[in-house]
Amino acid sequence: MKGSALSALGRRTAPPPISWLMQAALSRPQLISLAAGFTDNATLPVEISRKVLNHVLRSPQTGRPALQYGITTGETNLRQLTARHLQKHDAADATSRSHFWEQVMITGGSQQLLYMTLEALCDEGDFVLVEDPTYFVFLSILQSRGLRARSVRLERDGLDLAHLETVLQRLKKSGELRRVKALYLISYFHNPTGVTTSFGKKRGIVKLLKKFERTAGHPIYLIEDAAYRELRFKGPDIKSALMVPGATERVIYAGTYSKPYAPGARVGFGLLPEPLFTTVQRIKGNHDFGTANLLQQLIAGALKTGLYDRHVAKIEKRYGQKAQVMKQALAEHFPTNVEIWEAGGGLYFWSRLPKHISTGVKSKVFHAALKNDVLYVPGELCYADDPARKKPDHEMRISFGSASEENIREGIKRLGAVLRKFL
Amino acid sequence: MKGSALSALGRRTAPPPISWLMQAALSRPQLISLAAGFTDNATLPVEISRKVLNHVLRSPQTGRPALQYGITTGETNLRQLTARHLQKHDAADATSRSHFWEQVMITGGSQQLLYMTLEALCDEGDFVLVEDPTYFVFLSILQSRGLRARSVRLERDGLDLAHLETVLQRLKKSGELRRVKALYLISYFHNPTGVTTSFGKKRGIVKLLKKFERTAGHPIYLIEDAAYRELRFKGPDIKSALMVPGATERVIYAGTYSKPYAPGARVGFGLLPEPLFTTVQRIKGNHDFGTANLLQQLIAGALKTGLYDRHVAKIEKRYGQKAQVMKQALAEHFPTNVEIWEAGGGLYFWSRLPKHISTGVKSKVFHAALKNDVLYVPGELCYADDPARKKPDHEMRISFGSASEENIREGIKRLGAVLRKFL
Repeated sequence: MKGSALSALGRRTAPPPISWLMQAALSRPQLISLAAGFTDNATLPVEISRKVLNHVLRSPQTGRPALQYGITTGETNLRQLTARHLQKHDAADATSRSHFWEQVMITGGSQQLLYMTLEALCDEGDFVLVEDPTYFVFLSILQSRGLRARSVRLERDGLDLAHLETVLQRLKKSGELRRVKALYLISYFHNPTGVTTSFGKKRGIVKLLKKFERTAGHPIYLIEDAAYRELRFKGPDIKSALMVPGATERVIYAGTYSKPYAPGARVGFGLLPEPLFTTVQRIKGNHDFGTANLLQQLIAGALKTGLYDRHVAKIEKRYGQKAQVMKQALAEHFPTNVEIWEAGGGLYFWSRLPKHISTGVKSKVFHAALKNDVLYVPGELCYADDPARKKPDHEMRISFGSASEENIREGIKRLGAVLRKFL
Repeated sequence: MKGSALSALGRRTAPPPISWLMQAALSRPQLISLAAGFTDNATLPVEISRKVLNHVLRSPQTGRPALQYGITTGETNLRQLTARHLQKHDAADATSRSHFWEQVMITGGSQQLLYMTLEALCDEGDFVLVEDPTYFVFLSILQSRGLRARSVRLERDGLDLAHLETVLQRLKKSGELRRVKALYLISYFHNPTGVTTSFGKKRGIVKLLKKFERTAGHPIYLIEDAAYRELRFKGPDIKSALMVPGATERVIYAGTYSKPYAPGARVGFGLLPEPLFTTVQRIKGNHDFGTANLLQQLIAGALKTGLYDRHVAKIEKRYGQKAQVMKQALAEHFPTNVEIWEAGGGLYFWSRLPKHISTGVKSKVFHAALKNDVLYVPGELCYADDPARKKPDHEMRISFGSASEENIREGIKRLGAVLRKFL
C-alpha cells in the first residue's frame, strides 16, 4: 500500500524545529543549553504542591470532585479566582466587563487556547499578523493549519505602528483584508526578544485593527499572549489590552499558570469575547471535555492560600538574579559589536550579530557552538515566511530560564569564545 | 460590525447535545440522572492518589521532574508501563511488534487522541465508518470537522460484517472509497449499547478493510476505542484488534486511565502505527507539547505500586453490583415489551422500546421523564446522519455509572412508571 491516508494537514505538518535542537542536546551530555524555554528547575513549587494536594485530597468529600469530570470551560472557582487575579494585575474595576469571570476559560496551558482560537477563527489560507520575530511554536501551528503570516516590525517598546498600518494597507490593496483574522502579540517579555509592548502601543494596535475592520467586513482580533507576564523582575506591570477602551469585544487574552507556577501542572486560561467564547468552548468539548480537575484544584488551592503569590515573588527574584548573571557574563565574554536586548522579565535575552554573520542551524557559528557544547535558538527559526522581506539570520535567543547560574556563566563564556572567532 | 470572523469550522461546530441535558439536570435538583457518563463517585481513588502524589513530591529531586515540561509523546516510564499493561491484557508476547512502547503516545484522555487522529487522517468531506449507534461526542467531532459518517449495523457481538461489506461496496460503486479513511469501533462495552465486539469480528473487520484498501488507494485504519475495557465485571477479556495477525500497521488503539482510575486526572493513551504516530506527535506538539507530567507521574506511580490494579479490581466489583441493581430494577419496573441489552462492563444498559414510541429530546416520553425527575440519553443522539436509513428514535441509554444504588432503583422506578403510561 503506497498511498497515504493522511489529511492535507497531516501531510503538511512539519516537525517542530526545536525537536532537532533537543535531540542535539541529548546526544551531548556536556552541552549547556541556553536554548530551552524551560523554567527554573530549582524553584519549582514541590512543597507547595504537596501541601495543596494533600489539602485537596484530605477526605473523600474534598478529593472526589478533583478526581471526577468537570465542566468544559473549567471549574467555576478557578475561573473566578482567575478573573480576580487578572483584575488585580490590570488594576481593573471588579465590575469591569472586560474581566468578567464568565469570559474566562481554563485550558491545557495557553498553547491549547492559541490552537483552539486559530481553529475557531481561521480557514486555510487566512492571514494572521505576527511580530517579526515571533514565537516559533505559534508559527508551527500556522504552518500545520495552512495559514499565512504577515510580519510586523518590532521595536524596543513593541510593534512598529507605522509598519502595522503599511502591512494592513498592503493587504487592503491586494483585496486580502477579508482574510485577515487576527494579530498575534506576545506583549510581555516577548519570546524570543524580551520586548514588552507599551500600553500606548496596545491602544494604537487596537485602533488600527478597528480602522481596517470596516474593509475586512469582520472583526480583526488582537490575540494577546501574556505567557511571561508574571515572570517580571524589573519595571512596572503594564496593563493588558483588555484595558484599552472599547477593546473588550476584540481582545483574546491568553494567560497561563504554567510558566509562573509549574509547566508539569499545565493549566492556562483565556478571556474570550463572544462569539469566540462559545465557539472555543464547543471545540474544547471535542478536544478533551475540559482540563483535568485535579490540576485546576491544585492551582485554585495555591491561589486561594496565597502560596501562589509567595511563589511568584520568589521566582521573580530568582529570574532577576539569573538575568543579572547573564548580563554580566555577556559584558565580559561577548564581542562589543553584538547587540544585546536585555529583558526585564521572562526567560530570554536577544542577541544580534552583525548582519553578515549567520547564526542559523546550518551556519558555522551554530556548529562551532555545538562543538563547544553550548546551544542557543537560532533567530531564523522565529521568523515567519513573508514575501515582503528576507528572513533575518544573524540573531540568537539565549535563555537564562533553566540553566544554573554556573552554567549561564560557562555557557556565555563558551558562546563568546565562538563569536570572537567569527567577529 | 455584523460580519463574522469565524472559520468554517468555527461557524459549523454545533453545541454538544449533552450540554442541553446537563443544563436540564442543573435546573432540577431532585432529578436523578441516568444520562451522565460519569464514573462512580464513591470509589474514586482519593487515598491512593494522595499516597502516590506524596511519594512523587516527597523531595525536590523526585518532585521537580513532575512539575517541569516533559516530552510531547509522554514520559518514557509511563509509555513503557502502558505497553506492558496492554501486553498483559492482550496476553501478548513482550516482543510483539504490535505492543512496542515506542508506539505508545500519552494524551489528555483518549478523547484528545481521537481528535488528533481525525486531524491527521481526514480532510473535510472524508468518510469515517461508525457503528450504528455510536459515541455521540465522536459524532460531534465529525460534525465540527465537516466529515461524513457511514453507519454499520450493530449486532449483539459487534458489527454486522455483511453490512460492513455492503457499505464498503456501496462506497466503492459511488467512487467514494478513496475518501474513506477509517472505521471507528468502540470494541468493549460499547457506548451507548454495552456491546462487546468478539475477536472473530475484529478479525473480519480488518480483513474487509484490507480488501477494500486496494480500491481506496491507501490504508483504511481501524480506530479501536477501548475506553471501557477495564470496567469489566462479567465474561473474559477479549483480545484487542492489535492481536489480529497482520493488523499492526492498520490499528489505532485508543485507551485510557481516565475511566478506570480518575477522570479528573485525565490521562489517556494511544498506540499508533507509522506514519500516524509521527504525524499525531507533531500535531500534539502544536496542541500542548505533551500531557501534564504531574498526572503522568500519578498514573505511573499507581501502576508501578500495584495500587492501580487493586483499584480496578475494586471498581469492577462495584460496577458489577450496580449493574445488578439496575437489572433487578428494570425487571421490576419496566414494561416487558421494552428490550434491554445488558452489559458485562462499562457504564451503560441499552433499552429499546417498540419502534413507534419516540424517546428523542422532543418526545413525550423524554418530557414526561424530565417532569418525573429522571434523565436518560435519547438514543437518537447516538446515531450519525446517514442517507441510507432513517434515524432510529425509540431507544435510551441508561447509565449505572454515577448514580448511587438507591438512585438507580428510584430512577428506574420513575422511568418505568413513565414508560407504562405510553406502552
